[in-house]
Amino acid sequence: MTAYSKMTREELQAAYAAEQKKFDDLKAQGLNLNMARGKPGKAQLDLVSDIFDIKLTAEDFTIDGFDARNYGELTGLPAARRLFAEILGCKPQQVFAGGNSSLQLMYDTVSKAYTHGMLHSARPWCKEEKIKWLCPAPGYDRHFKVTESFGFELITIAMTENGPDMDAVEEAIKDPAVKGMWNVPKYSNPQGITYSDETIRRLASMKPAAPDFLLMWDNAYCIHEFEGEFVPFVEILSECEKYGNADMVFEFASTSKVTLPGAGIACFACSEANLAYMTKLMDIQVISFDKVNQLRHVRFLKDKANTLELMKRHSAIMAPKFRAVTDALDAEIAPLEIASWNHPKGGYFVSVDAMPGTAKRALALCKEAGVTMTGAGATFPYGKDPADSNIRIAPSLPPVSELEQAIAVFCTCLKLAALEKLLG
Amino acid sequence: MTAYSKMTREELQAAYAAEQKKFDDLKAQGLNLNMARGKPGKAQLDLVSDIFDIKLTAEDFTIDGFDARNYGELTGLPAARRLFAEILGCKPQQVFAGGNSSLQLMYDTVSKAYTHGMLHSARPWCKEEKIKWLCPAPGYDRHFKVTESFGFELITIAMTENGPDMDAVEEAIKDPAVKGMWNVPKYSNPQGITYSDETIRRLASMKPAAPDFLLMWDNAYCIHEFEGEFVPFVEILSECEKYGNADMVFEFASTSKVTLPGAGIACFACSEANLAYMTKLMDIQVISFDKVNQLRHVRFLKDKANTLELMKRHSAIMAPKFRAVTDALDAEIAPLEIASWNHPKGGYFVSVDAMPGTAKRALALCKEAGVTMTGAGATFPYGKDPADSNIRIAPSLPPVSELEQAIAVFCTCLKLAALEKLLG
Repeated sequence: MTAYSKMTREELQAAYAAEQKKFDDLKAQGLNLNMARGKPGKAQLDLVSDIFDIKLTAEDFTIDGFDARNYGELTGLPAARRLFAEILGCKPQQVFAGGNSSLQLMYDTVSKAYTHGMLHSARPWCKEEKIKWLCPAPGYDRHFKVTESFGFELITIAMTENGPDMDAVEEAIKDPAVKGMWNVPKYSNPQGITYSDETIRRLASMKPAAPDFLLMWDNAYCIHEFEGEFVPFVEILSECEKYGNADMVFEFASTSKVTLPGAGIACFACSEANLAYMTKLMDIQVISFDKVNQLRHVRFLKDKANTLELMKRHSAIMAPKFRAVTDALDAEIAPLEIASWNHPKGGYFVSVDAMPGTAKRALALCKEAGVTMTGAGATFPYGKDPADSNIRIAPSLPPVSELEQAIAVFCTCLKLAALEKLLG
Repeated sequence: MTAYSKMTREELQAAYAAEQKKFDDLKAQGLNLNMARGKPGKAQLDLVSDIFDIKLTAEDFTIDGFDARNYGELTGLPAARRLFAEILGCKPQQVFAGGNSSLQLMYDTVSKAYTHGMLHSARPWCKEEKIKWLCPAPGYDRHFKVTESFGFELITIAMTENGPDMDAVEEAIKDPAVKGMWNVPKYSNPQGITYSDETIRRLASMKPAAPDFLLMWDNAYCIHEFEGEFVPFVEILSECEKYGNADMVFEFASTSKVTLPGAGIACFACSEANLAYMTKLMDIQVISFDKVNQLRHVRFLKDKANTLELMKRHSAIMAPKFRAVTDALDAEIAPLEIASWNHPKGGYFVSVDAMPGTAKRALALCKEAGVTMTGAGATFPYGKDPADSNIRIAPSLPPVSELEQAIAVFCTCLKLAALEKLLG
C-alpha cells in the first residue's frame, strides 16, 4: 500500500472507487454495532457474578460498631474507606465512600462549589462574575459537560504525551477566574496517556491565583491495565500536601469497571479539612449512601492484591478487543499515512487522530453503515474539535467478532473521508 | 393526680421534690437511650433479611431489554418504576427510580432549581434577588435545613388537624418570591397528621404568583400504618393536573422504612414534562442509579399487595413501641394538664406540645439523665420554636424495654421543667 499523499489523482480515484465498493458491501450487511461508550461487555459482568452469592446475615451487618443496614455513617463503611485508601495509597480518614457513581460525586463537588463555595472560597461560585475551567483535550466529554452545564467558560489545554501542556496550565492559572481543572491522570480518556511524574509535580506545586482552585483528579483507570503488570501511580493527596496544596485536590475512583458499572461503589478522597467541610454540606443532602453494597464489595474484593487479581481477569477479556482495533488500524490505515493513534496499555479507549477535517465525515459514514461511535468533537470542550480530527474508539462492549466487523467499517470510512477530502 | 394549675405553691413544691428525687434515681442508673431519629429498630431490619437471599444470576439481569448490571436507563429499571407507580397510584412513566435516598432526590431537585431553574423558571433561582419557602410546622427538620442551606427565607405555616393552614398558604403564595412548600401529606413528621381531602384540593388548585412554584410532596409514610388497615391517599399528580397544575408538584417516596433504611430504593414522581426536563439535567450528573438493587427490591416486594403485607409485619413491631410512649404520657402527664400529644396511627413520631417555654429545659434534663431526643426547636424553621414547646419523640429504634425506661425519664423531665417554670 502507498501513502495517499504519494498517490497520483488517478490512483486516488481508483482507491476511492475500491473503498466505495467495500463500503456499499458493508452497508448491505445491515450491521448494528456500537463502539460509542466505555461500557464493559457481558463477559466482564459475568466475571463478578460471585458478588451476588456473598452470604449476608443479620450478624454480618454489625461491623465497625454499627448496623450497615440502618441510616448513618455518612462517610461510608470504615472497611470500604480502608479498601479505597489501600488502592489509592491515601489514608482511610481522607476517603468518603459513596454510592454507585463517581460522576455523581464529581458533579456534586462542582455543584456545591457553585451553590455554597469550597473551603477556601470567598463566596459561592454562583455569586462570581465569571468562572473559567481548564480542560485538557482530547478529554472526557462527561467531565466537560458538567462544568459547561454550570456556565463555566471551558479553556482547552493541549494534551502532550506526558499529560496536559503544563506551560499553558501555569499561564492560565494566573487568572483568578480560573477555578479548576479536569484530570484523568492514568490512562487518560481517550488517549490512554499517563501523566509523567514531572507533570504531576508541576500540578501539585502550582500556585493558582484562585485560593479555592479545584484540581479534579478522576483516577478512573488507576488499576485498569489490560497489558502488562499493574503500574504504580503517584499518590496525589500527599504530593499536593508536600507543596502546601493539601486542600487543592479532590480524587475520585470507583469499582464501575472493577465489579459492576451500574452497581459498584465510588469514592472521593481529599484532605481531612476538605472532608470535614464537604461532609457538613453533604449531611444536608443525604443521610448515608448504600453501606450494604459497600459491605458486599469489601467482602468480594477483600484488598488491593485480590482486586488486582480480578483486574487481570478483566484484562484477559479486554486485551484481545484492543488488539483487534489497533491491529486493524496498523494494517489498514498506517501505510496510508492518513491518521495516527495510540497503543494504550490500560484504560478503555483508543484515540484516533484522523486527517484534519475528516472526523465528522468518517463518523457520519460509520453511522450510515450501522456502526455507532462517540460523536465527532465529543472529546473537546463544547463538543467542538477545532481540527475535526479526533475520534474516540471504545472497544469494550462488543464481542471480538463484532468488533472486527466494526473496525473494518471504521477503516473503510476513514479512508473514504480522507479520499473525498484529497479529491475534493 | 391533680392538674398542676390547680395545685397550691406548697403542693407544687412537694411535687417538685418528689420528681427531683425520681430524676436523681434515674440519672444514677447511667442510662444511654435514644429516641432522637426515625430509625427503624433491629427487629425491623431482620424482618427483611430474605432480600439478601434472592438468587440473582447473569440471566436475571437481562430484564426489560437491557442488562441491569451495566450503565444506562437513567430513569430506572422499568419494573421498579412500575412498582412505585402502583404504590403511589400514578403512571410508571411519571416515576424516576433512583438510589437509596429520597432526601438526596429532594435536595437535588431544590439544588437544580437553584443552579439551573425548574421547567417554568425565568432563570436559575441563584439569580433571583430573594427566594422564600413555605414550611408547615411542626415539620421535618431535614426538609427545613435543605431550603435553609440554599439561603431561602423560611416562612412558618401553622399546622392544623387537617394539614397546613390553607388560608395562610393562599395568602403567602401571592408573593412571587415564594417559590415552594414542603409537605408530608400522610402521617406528617412529627404530628402524624394526614392532610384532609379539602386541604389537598386547595393545595392542588392553588394559583401561586411564581410560575415555577414547587410543591414538594414527601410521601414518606404513604403505606406506613402501624394501627388498623392501609388508608388510601389522594394521588397528587392527577389531582394537580385536574386544576391545570400538572408541573407544580414533585412527589417523593422510598423503601427506607419498608426494606432497609440505608440500602433501600427511592423515587420521585412528577409530570412527564417535568421528568423529561429533570432527566436532561440529571444525565449530566449520573449515568444511572443502582438498578441491581432496584431489581432486588422488585423481586422481594413484588407488588403493592405484597408490600402492604410486609408493612403489617412492621406494624406488629412498631405498635407496641408507640403504645409504650402514649400509654406513659396518658397515665403520667395527662392528669397534670401540662402537655398535649397526638395518638398517631402511622408514621414514625409522637409529637408532644409541652408547657410553653419548657421544651428546651425538659430535653436538657433528658440529656443529663442519658436519654437523647431530637433537639428542641428542630421541628421549626431555623430550629427555633417560638413557643419553646414542641418535642418530637421517635420510638422506633429502642426495644420496648428500653423505651419504657426512656419515656419514664422523659415524663419526669417534662414534669420537672413544668414545675420549675410554675415555681419560677
